[in-house]
Amino acid sequence: MRMSQLFLRTLRDAPTDADVDSLRLLSRAGYVRKVAAGFYSWLPLGSRVLRNVERIVREEMDAAGAQEVLLPIAQPLELWQQSGREQLYGPLMFRISDRKDAGYCLAPTAEELITATVRGEYSSYRDLPVNLYQIQWKYRDELRPRFGLLRSREFLMKDAYSFDTDAANLRKSYQLMYDAYHKVFERCALNFRPVRAQSGDIGGDVNHEFMAVANIGEDDFVWCKSCDYAANVEAAVRRSPEPVAPGSQPMSKIATPDKPGINAVAEHLGCAASELLKCLAFETEAGAIGLALVPGDREVNEYALKVALGGVAYEFLDDAAFARFPRLPKGYIGAHNQHIEIAVADPSVLARTSWVTGANEVDHHVTDAVVGRDFQPTVVAPIVVVASGDVCPECDGELSVDRGIEVGHVFQIGTKYSESLGATFTDENGEAHPMVMGCYGIGISRVVAAIVEEHHDEAGICWPAEISPYAVHLIALTGKGATSEEVRQAAVAIYDGLNSAGVSVVYDDRDVSPGVKFADADLLGVPVQLVVGAKGLARGVVERKLRKTGSRDELAIDAVLGQYIGEGAKSRG
Amino acid sequence: MRMSQLFLRTLRDAPTDADVDSLRLLSRAGYVRKVAAGFYSWLPLGSRVLRNVERIVREEMDAAGAQEVLLPIAQPLELWQQSGREQLYGPLMFRISDRKDAGYCLAPTAEELITATVRGEYSSYRDLPVNLYQIQWKYRDELRPRFGLLRSREFLMKDAYSFDTDAANLRKSYQLMYDAYHKVFERCALNFRPVRAQSGDIGGDVNHEFMAVANIGEDDFVWCKSCDYAANVEAAVRRSPEPVAPGSQPMSKIATPDKPGINAVAEHLGCAASELLKCLAFETEAGAIGLALVPGDREVNEYALKVALGGVAYEFLDDAAFARFPRLPKGYIGAHNQHIEIAVADPSVLARTSWVTGANEVDHHVTDAVVGRDFQPTVVAPIVVVASGDVCPECDGELSVDRGIEVGHVFQIGTKYSESLGATFTDENGEAHPMVMGCYGIGISRVVAAIVEEHHDEAGICWPAEISPYAVHLIALTGKGATSEEVRQAAVAIYDGLNSAGVSVVYDDRDVSPGVKFADADLLGVPVQLVVGAKGLARGVVERKLRKTGSRDELAIDAVLGQYIGEGAKSRG
Repeated sequence: MRMSQLFLRTLRDAPTDADVDSLRLLSRAGYVRKVAAGFYSWLPLGSRVLRNVERIVREEMDAAGAQEVLLPIAQPLELWQQSGREQLYGPLMFRISDRKDAGYCLAPTAEELITATVRGEYSSYRDLPVNLYQIQWKYRDELRPRFGLLRSREFLMKDAYSFDTDAANLRKSYQLMYDAYHKVFERCALNFRPVRAQSGDIGGDVNHEFMAVANIGEDDFVWCKSCDYAANVEAAVRRSPEPVAPGSQPMSKIATPDKPGINAVAEHLGCAASELLKCLAFETEAGAIGLALVPGDREVNEYALKVALGGVAYEFLDDAAFARFPRLPKGYIGAHNQHIEIAVADPSVLARTSWVTGANEVDHHVTDAVVGRDFQPTVVAPIVVVASGDVCPECDGELSVDRGIEVGHVFQIGTKYSESLGATFTDENGEAHPMVMGCYGIGISRVVAAIVEEHHDEAGICWPAEISPYAVHLIALTGKGATSEEVRQAAVAIYDGLNSAGVSVVYDDRDVSPGVKFADADLLGVPVQLVVGAKGLARGVVERKLRKTGSRDELAIDAVLGQYIGEGAKSRG
Repeated sequence: MRMSQLFLRTLRDAPTDADVDSLRLLSRAGYVRKVAAGFYSWLPLGSRVLRNVERIVREEMDAAGAQEVLLPIAQPLELWQQSGREQLYGPLMFRISDRKDAGYCLAPTAEELITATVRGEYSSYRDLPVNLYQIQWKYRDELRPRFGLLRSREFLMKDAYSFDTDAANLRKSYQLMYDAYHKVFERCALNFRPVRAQSGDIGGDVNHEFMAVANIGEDDFVWCKSCDYAANVEAAVRRSPEPVAPGSQPMSKIATPDKPGINAVAEHLGCAASELLKCLAFETEAGAIGLALVPGDREVNEYALKVALGGVAYEFLDDAAFARFPRLPKGYIGAHNQHIEIAVADPSVLARTSWVTGANEVDHHVTDAVVGRDFQPTVVAPIVVVASGDVCPECDGELSVDRGIEVGHVFQIGTKYSESLGATFTDENGEAHPMVMGCYGIGISRVVAAIVEEHHDEAGICWPAEISPYAVHLIALTGKGATSEEVRQAAVAIYDGLNSAGVSVVYDDRDVSPGVKFADADLLGVPVQLVVGAKGLARGVVERKLRKTGSRDELAIDAVLGQYIGEGAKSRG
């Protein structure tokens, strides 16, 4: 493609509302344009990049035995009512009415329709397993669309759905997808980690998020510096410290006037926050009052607390709730409070000889509160939010907490949808069972943004070879001099040669200064730049610059073709 | 792909609401499934076929220099209000509101957004021409979705838009697309004709519809059996008959009681309908009363009449209007009526010596009415609807009227959108002008249906090679006998060999009867069937059947690979 003909205008400045590097650079380099909040147009360069990611995903899905389908974007709301998800999505789902007032949504995902589809065709254990996927536009009416393509309202997603006869077979289908996702994100050159995610409310499901490491990421995740352990913050656990022998000092009350917070009390007493016991009061859906007990410098993992409660739903007390419980004085609750029915302690609560905690009386705390003597947990379970420096639960390594972009998610759903939508199969004995499902998503347009977040520098984007819109960026320094026509002819010869060899080239044949050409080449981010200039030409060479490293060398013009024929296969966009 | 694993159930009977062959066969053969009225899912075979058509279109668009983009499906209504098309589309357009009550539509086409996009990037004559296309889902809330994929509410469409500096350059861009469309539809093996379509209301635009000939088609079109002339019925003209010398018999009134219709009068008088003059009364938007005069056996082309009136809008009188004009007795109006202000006569009116026409008096007609003596046309212009057997306007050939499916449309728009949306460029002198646009559509999903309408027989679909989901349908007649395992091994060897050679194969490895395998193969419609059976195997051959012709021959097993390596390139689906 000649740049004189390419539909492209690079921008000196990013749009003022571009709030992340990926959107800033993809806008400046003319890959995308914002149409409305959360809606983007993909211009020619962007469309090539998007299709490259799409191609990688398709190839790996096909290789893993998944079969491609295409479901309608507009789907009958009725299906979503049957599964109960219409209400769950609420205003997140775009809805439309047709001229006969039949209700449709713009599908945010497709579990319902795919389940109904498989139900319509398959009915026997002999038919299974089957794994169907589509690459289709999806919709979510985000409250705050932001971060450009990372959280847009219209996005391209690959969603796959597997159907099996039982949980053991589901695990096989799941592993195939899990492995395929590794290949996809490796080919996309992302620094990613599959992290264990919290299971669903019923506690039995397995699922992993594939996180691309990025400061801009919206999600924290935990990973071990020594082994493969990784989990999102809700699901992450640490190796808890060992219990210690209890202290023997008697518990004593002290005045802490007007100091309801951990840090204020610690400062007042001249001790560390970690010496105080944090007591968070909650009420279960059954009306029981409980405390979550963790060291004063730690947070409570709300999801882990629910698991510790056996899946019982609860809410932390807010001011209105505190007003109903005068014997739980906010800010001064102690673990030895006689009015609580449940006390869930993190194992680390057993790892101190004694604690400073509330006195269950306003403006007072107690010191030397001892587990087992002064207060008695009803449940001991890991409920702290894991932090950097904690110990890995699977080895002695150190855990680290980083931010990431969720680029993929694999999930063992089970029978939720097959039961609500009646997708059953008959087994060898003629008995009917619901099919056992897995679902597997990749945010194709989000992956493009995640790649840019990872692969860029001050000057612009640095595309990985398989994603780049072109394999080679050819620059002709034609200038105004007597050699101008020679340079142009040499560049055209290289351009034609590479094209004939199937190597995709963008050729800057514009009548602009070398500085503009170099800056645009760096901004666009094609991995290899070839520069044809008069001086090199006199010696029969062109300069080659690798965008990522900035390293330069010279290639004999005769050798250029041989060098890049291999690149054609990598970047077919 | 092994059929034992392919997500496919063929159906003995088509869904009862399938109203055309394409939907009946694509449903029975498991290519598509209806989700709701006008919404379809594409199952694995269907998705491969759809992508084959998409690939052909993409290749030909790229070869013609168009650049691919991707615009949002959900587009701000504001843009459509600026162009005035929001109201024009009315209930045909699906609308959505987001959670902040901002209005969007599901785009039925994209002139507005593409114009705004080009306006945002380009501003100089040096930037032009540019041609941008996308392959994206489109939406129309049809009053009566029908004919399956031919008139669905969600459909995949290629829409391209060219921008030029002037009409002469637009014609060049238009010709490139016109030629590319020929290549696309030839590769799709459609029997098609580009037909001239009526110009827009302003009369100056040029556009062609690409019609696939099909009995089920919703549109009539006219074509010459001897030359390239073709036009849709609104735009079609014929070579008018030559004028003849007027007759000399005096006009005389006759009683035709209770006979207001052409046929009743002709029967009453014992003459042909073509001897009567049909006088259709109309009222222009300015309030003038006129008659359209054509032979009694011909219809008036309403579009041509408007052109003959210089673009003035008019309406034929209905009963309420006739009540306002007592001097125009419905069914008995004659061309010599003194109260009309305009009389538009087709040239054929001058090609008879005299006419039978109304007497402008209820229950009476006149005979021997002579043009120029008894009545005087104010305009003579071609206004009859062309019929089979008429003479071609460009040669002496015979015209034929057939039905067709509009699979593509190319249109010289001009400056309608660039003016309303402010897409201007500055010329060499710094003067601003609106860009001159063309737009070019292909209904990708409709093309799939049109191909099936043309390429099928009683037994099923007969895909053209480039469209077929697979190049080869391999059938193993394993049976129950001692040779069963040998047959299976031979089939697997051929299957593996073809796959390795890049030839796409669907291999029927199912444990079903030969009859079921043959019937499914014919239904699915892959162009080449290879049958491996015990008897042939003993002689080292497999049977080859060509789906389209039913012809059979035998191939030495050793020669199969050599035969089909070439097919891989044709059907890459």
